[in-house]
Amino acid sequence: MSWSRVMPARPVVAVAGVTGAVGIEMLKTLEQRGFPASRVVALASSRSAGKRLPFANGELIVEEMTESSFEGVHIALFSAGAAVSKAMAPAANAAGCVVIDNSSAFRMDDTVPLVVPEVNASDLAWHSGVIANPNCSTIQMVVVLSPLHEIAPIRRVVVSTYQATSGAGQAAMDELYDQTRDFLEGRELAPAAFAHRIAFNCIPQIDVFLNDGSTKEEWKMVVETKKIMHAPQVEIAATCVRVPVLRCHSECLNIEFEADVTVAEARAALESASGITVIDDPVSLSYPMPALLEGSDDVYVGRLRADESVSHGLALWIVADQLRKGAALNAVQIAEALLPR
Amino acid sequence: MSWSRVMPARPVVAVAGVTGAVGIEMLKTLEQRGFPASRVVALASSRSAGKRLPFANGELIVEEMTESSFEGVHIALFSAGAAVSKAMAPAANAAGCVVIDNSSAFRMDDTVPLVVPEVNASDLAWHSGVIANPNCSTIQMVVVLSPLHEIAPIRRVVVSTYQATSGAGQAAMDELYDQTRDFLEGRELAPAAFAHRIAFNCIPQIDVFLNDGSTKEEWKMVVETKKIMHAPQVEIAATCVRVPVLRCHSECLNIEFEADVTVAEARAALESASGITVIDDPVSLSYPMPALLEGSDDVYVGRLRADESVSHGLALWIVADQLRKGAALNAVQIAEALLPR
Repeated sequence: MSWSRVMPARPVVAVAGVTGAVGIEMLKTLEQRGFPASRVVALASSRSAGKRLPFANGELIVEEMTESSFEGVHIALFSAGAAVSKAMAPAANAAGCVVIDNSSAFRMDDTVPLVVPEVNASDLAWHSGVIANPNCSTIQMVVVLSPLHEIAPIRRVVVSTYQATSGAGQAAMDELYDQTRDFLEGRELAPAAFAHRIAFNCIPQIDVFLNDGSTKEEWKMVVETKKIMHAPQVEIAATCVRVPVLRCHSECLNIEFEADVTVAEARAALESASGITVIDDPVSLSYPMPALLEGSDDVYVGRLRADESVSHGLALWIVADQLRKGAALNAVQIAEALLPR
Repeated sequence: MSWSRVMPARPVVAVAGVTGAVGIEMLKTLEQRGFPASRVVALASSRSAGKRLPFANGELIVEEMTESSFEGVHIALFSAGAAVSKAMAPAANAAGCVVIDNSSAFRMDDTVPLVVPEVNASDLAWHSGVIANPNCSTIQMVVVLSPLHEIAPIRRVVVSTYQATSGAGQAAMDELYDQTRDFLEGRELAPAAFAHRIAFNCIPQIDVFLNDGSTKEEWKMVVETKKIMHAPQVEIAATCVRVPVLRCHSECLNIEFEADVTVAEARAALESASGITVIDDPVSLSYPMPALLEGSDDVYVGRLRADESVSHGLALWIVADQLRKGAALNAVQIAEALLPR
């Protein structure tokens, strides 16, 4: 059963979880892209109700999210955690509101499309009220894999991530800053947002451990990629690592294709793909780096080279702003794709 | 032609480049391990001559290194850059002094053994006056690959590194600290030791670029590993990345074997190998991390799990102190292996 409600040209949009790191970025993204909302409703927990947030030339007053918050709302961008999404999505749908959910609540639900517009916008056709936004580390990877998979089928991907603290929310970003300052000043450290010290450290664990020794973040990169790309046959090995970086995730990819792909062919495919910028000039020491790319929208690719350790191998390095393409921007792009043509 | 001089039980040892980050660590390592030196000679450039360095219960006065510095010296640990090694090694050898060289000057010279004592101590038998200490990122990897290669031949390794600033010397370590403080205080940043900002950033380039789009650091990990392990057939794909960490390198390894290796077999082989400590307990969120392991001697292994994306695959995460096992300790271990039994 797919969704039959008609989307108006100027819908009412709610942002649920509007005071979080992603929620704030969702508001900013709606404004910057001139999303044609007739009205924006700012929703959060009762703790934040009454808070004022700047938006466009005015401000929004945060309302407490309840089951009746979605009357008259056409699109709700959810980023308040999986439990809230599960609790509130039915009420939103019952009110005729499409949910674009940034949590993991519905991503692997067979009845819910998991969408990165550059890759599988066509899956929006069969949604029935809920559309899932993929995990941040998955989004930036599939944006890059998809145009390459079109020139030659991908057999296997080995990915190692260098993930920013923003993926764990505003408190985690603050912890990196505050803890780094404490460390430099010789004060005692008390990790809270992370299990271990993050200042000047790498933590090879993101999300909880699963029984097979992998983490849930690593599992997400595997199963979400297959679903988004409609490619269950692509093999993926992921290791996810938190690094002391603020808000851009980096990923090192070793890709094995079924047939030969030259570096020139790969570069041409990436350069002509939507949502990708290639920064790759060894002579000027140019390659994507988190410090360069905060607040940017594209997925940036560099260090393109043959991987001679395997037949048909290619290696590359990608960076994207976790809060933008990895979360808020992808959700807003999905909302844009729902607008009438 | 191999070396025929007899090594005394209490040799005179010189440390050449004694004021650098590795040189200081070499002195510390000689002292901590109770190396039976009858005398330690501290050598550096004229700039540092006369400087006093604490050693054992006394101090050493730094002497300017010249071609005549090696008279009466039996073992010289060099860490003053490739140009100095090339210029001074012949004079040292002529004086009867064995050179253990931490630079890249001789590593790929077919007449020079490249040695990690846990892996190929037997190659010391054919040295002719110069023994090369491998690159730091290579050392910690081969310590781990070697015992695994013994239980099943390794076909291919994909490695992504998370390398500390210590690998670029004391000035680079200082730059990470100072630049991080400047960044937190909103001051302007002026990268010097690195091509780009390192504070809260990842730089996907270590050493210079080669024509094939790889870097020299990546090339070193490939060719040095094959030489040390006597395994030209092992395929290696490396991506080397600098992260804002002080002095421990981390590496993510995806290993493909010729035959099946269970996680339990791999763990047992690693636990019984010399120079390795396994820290791997998901329940207590225990795994190796740079912040835990500064100043430690072993190579630490964790996140051991099957890599189901390929036949006979294994994934793991390793951390070692770049200045210890990655440089000074390995050199001192080589010196120890040269002592008469």
